[in-house]
Amino acid sequence: MGAGQVKNILEIYKHRVIEIQKDARIRYVLVCKNSGSAAGSGITHQHSEIIATPVIPLRMKAELDGAKSYYAYKERCIYCDILEEELRVGSRVIIETERFVAFCPYAPKFPFEFWIVPKEHRCAFEDAGLDEIDDLSHVLASAIKRMRTALNNPSYNYVVHTAPNRIPRRDHWHTLGDDFHWHIEVVPRLQRAAGFEWGSGFYVVPTSPEDAAEFLRRSGGDV
Amino acid sequence: MGAGQVKNILEIYKHRVIEIQKDARIRYVLVCKNSGSAAGSGITHQHSEIIATPVIPLRMKAELDGAKSYYAYKERCIYCDILEEELRVGSRVIIETERFVAFCPYAPKFPFEFWIVPKEHRCAFEDAGLDEIDDLSHVLASAIKRMRTALNNPSYNYVVHTAPNRIPRRDHWHTLGDDFHWHIEVVPRLQRAAGFEWGSGFYVVPTSPEDAAEFLRRSGGDV
Repeated sequence: MGAGQVKNILEIYKHRVIEIQKDARIRYVLVCKNSGSAAGSGITHQHSEIIATPVIPLRMKAELDGAKSYYAYKERCIYCDILEEELRVGSRVIIETERFVAFCPYAPKFPFEFWIVPKEHRCAFEDAGLDEIDDLSHVLASAIKRMRTALNNPSYNYVVHTAPNRIPRRDHWHTLGDDFHWHIEVVPRLQRAAGFEWGSGFYVVPTSPEDAAEFLRRSGGDV
Repeated sequence: MGAGQVKNILEIYKHRVIEIQKDARIRYVLVCKNSGSAAGSGITHQHSEIIATPVIPLRMKAELDGAKSYYAYKERCIYCDILEEELRVGSRVIIETERFVAFCPYAPKFPFEFWIVPKEHRCAFEDAGLDEIDDLSHVLASAIKRMRTALNNPSYNYVVHTAPNRIPRRDHWHTLGDDFHWHIEVVPRLQRAAGFEWGSGFYVVPTSPEDAAEFLRRSGGDV
């Protein structure tokens, strides 16, 4: 898919998330994509998934809690700090545009995992404006093309990490807008989790993020 | 493998765990088995893995913390309570022997997941006596044979869930011996985790544990 088609899809994600969040019972709307059988996809045509739940999913909750603790301690967004450090160091950056950075995180769970993070601090994907969606469509299409070129068209997953439904409720925290920073996490499915990963929650990653980023930077990503 | 060979392997697990735990730097010894490529095994011959870490792995910590909270609240071991309930209900039990129960848990993460839990409360696998190891070897060999028959020889993982290294240290809790209950968790790898599971930490399981247990009970498990 070219950037134009990816843009249409991102617009659909945004409008569906906004629509679903009007239902106050929904606490979280998770947008993800499974491409290829190794990524758990049982459907052969291209598709994404949007799953809304009446609770904040466990892992999202852990991520939100982590960001909130960091904010409570530093009075800064952890993702803004990560972005600043990644741009300073540079060796893990794959693509930088006016509004986004795609990079391999310092401590990935999987080899060649990468994140796409907006430079402007914003807690929710669905608040992204037209210019931001347009820029994101180029970054996402280009980064995925690089991954497909570099890794011989692997199965992959991506997940949009956004804020929970912000319909006011008692247990929502007042710093959510400041402490969380939406982003997309992409993982090519190159190896399967084994007993150690399953039992421990720890992940063995044989490729350094610097090597992965260099490999992805060198691969063609014109879209 | 017959029960005799499995017994030898369990004895080796036990002696290796005891030996490794003599090193005070080791906080946890994780014993697991990956069988088949879909279970993440990169080695074709039969093997197990023993991985010792200087920290308690994340997921083990979550399990230990959960058991500890339950004990603090109820003054009873959660696994003893689960066993009592499973034996009372019966529909999720696969095998019951003098010393062990193999059953499909009430809320599994994966279809056909099953646990093997000793009836006698004990926090550590490595404290199991000869009679217990002997009984366990029959239950484990029989349950795996049933799984292989029922599910057409699937890839699978199992993980021994035991107490952390009990060399006394400041942050060890004095109820560990009472609140945790060692057991083995077995998972056939029938489907791959997709974006939703990865992003949410929630698992979609299409088979009820009652159906899974009945299917496993009916499959041949002579060893």
